[in-house]
Amino acid sequence: MAAGADLGIERLRGLIRSIPDFPRPGIIFRDVTPLFAEPAALAGAVELLAAEVESAGPIDLVIGAEARGFILGSALAVRLGAGFVPARREGKLPARTERAAYELEYGAAELHVHSDAIPPGARVLVHDDLIATGGTARALGEIVERLGGEVVANAFLVELTALAGRDRLGAPTHSVIAFDD
Amino acid sequence: MAAGADLGIERLRGLIRSIPDFPRPGIIFRDVTPLFAEPAALAGAVELLAAEVESAGPIDLVIGAEARGFILGSALAVRLGAGFVPARREGKLPARTERAAYELEYGAAELHVHSDAIPPGARVLVHDDLIATGGTARALGEIVERLGGEVVANAFLVELTALAGRDRLGAPTHSVIAFDD
Repeated sequence: MAAGADLGIERLRGLIRSIPDFPRPGIIFRDVTPLFAEPAALAGAVELLAAEVESAGPIDLVIGAEARGFILGSALAVRLGAGFVPARREGKLPARTERAAYELEYGAAELHVHSDAIPPGARVLVHDDLIATGGTARALGEIVERLGGEVVANAFLVELTALAGRDRLGAPTHSVIAFDD
Repeated sequence: MAAGADLGIERLRGLIRSIPDFPRPGIIFRDVTPLFAEPAALAGAVELLAAEVESAGPIDLVIGAEARGFILGSALAVRLGAGFVPARREGKLPARTERAAYELEYGAAELHVHSDAIPPGARVLVHDDLIATGGTARALGEIVERLGGEVVANAFLVELTALAGRDRLGAPTHSVIAFDD
């Protein structure tokens, strides 16, 4: 987590709503939408993510997973002077795609990325709003590398540390707000 | 369209890929993803949208529709000093929602917004990446008003003018790039 910004981080944490048993019994859902609706918190989240990934050096593209990864992903791309690449569900992208299947904290899914979206050698930041088991981010990283890009970092607003998702990722992994339960 | 920024707009238009017969025969799909991947175009799109809505006065919240409306919607919210409210498909938002059903250019759908996401009196900008028949934006506006907010403007990156979607919307409606076929 970013040093020297603890007060801001605690304020952001307080805006995350915890909803037990959603989408199924036993899961505590961390609802980030109240944070997004607060102007200073939304802007602050983008700044804190940008500070986290500064050590990664120049970033050409931010890739985010449908749909919540689009929200901070594109704003972060603008902040970093990068482009944004959306990874989407089957049937949503109109041109040729590269795909990866993966498991979620609950259920399974597949993500697609336009095959021409990642130029060879592109320095790519993988983003999602939240990392749980790391399956989504790992799938994104696989696609990026299959297309010839380099994953220079992974960055998440929220990390569920008990699920150890970061251990499944190769590149340096950053998060702003951690929950340990 | 914004006066004095035509060069920028033509550059953005050139980055939109037109794909015939997607997602079904007879539809020309306007694929905005190459524009998002280009750093200057992504930042430029946000700036042009911000310029378009300047006449609307202060904006408290930007609301965008899942999933492509999240991409520029949140970046625009950061740029305007506003919060961002995601409108999502059934079952995606964990707290109580307000919903509206609507028809799309192809098919029908329903959008949900957290009932506590729009404080009474909030000045709200409705955003999507593209306006076709206007069904999505109209549904967003209905939800905003049912929750006590005020739609101060609608803003889209792309407008398919032949479908006259803007005629179905009440508030001033802005777009950056128009296609007339």
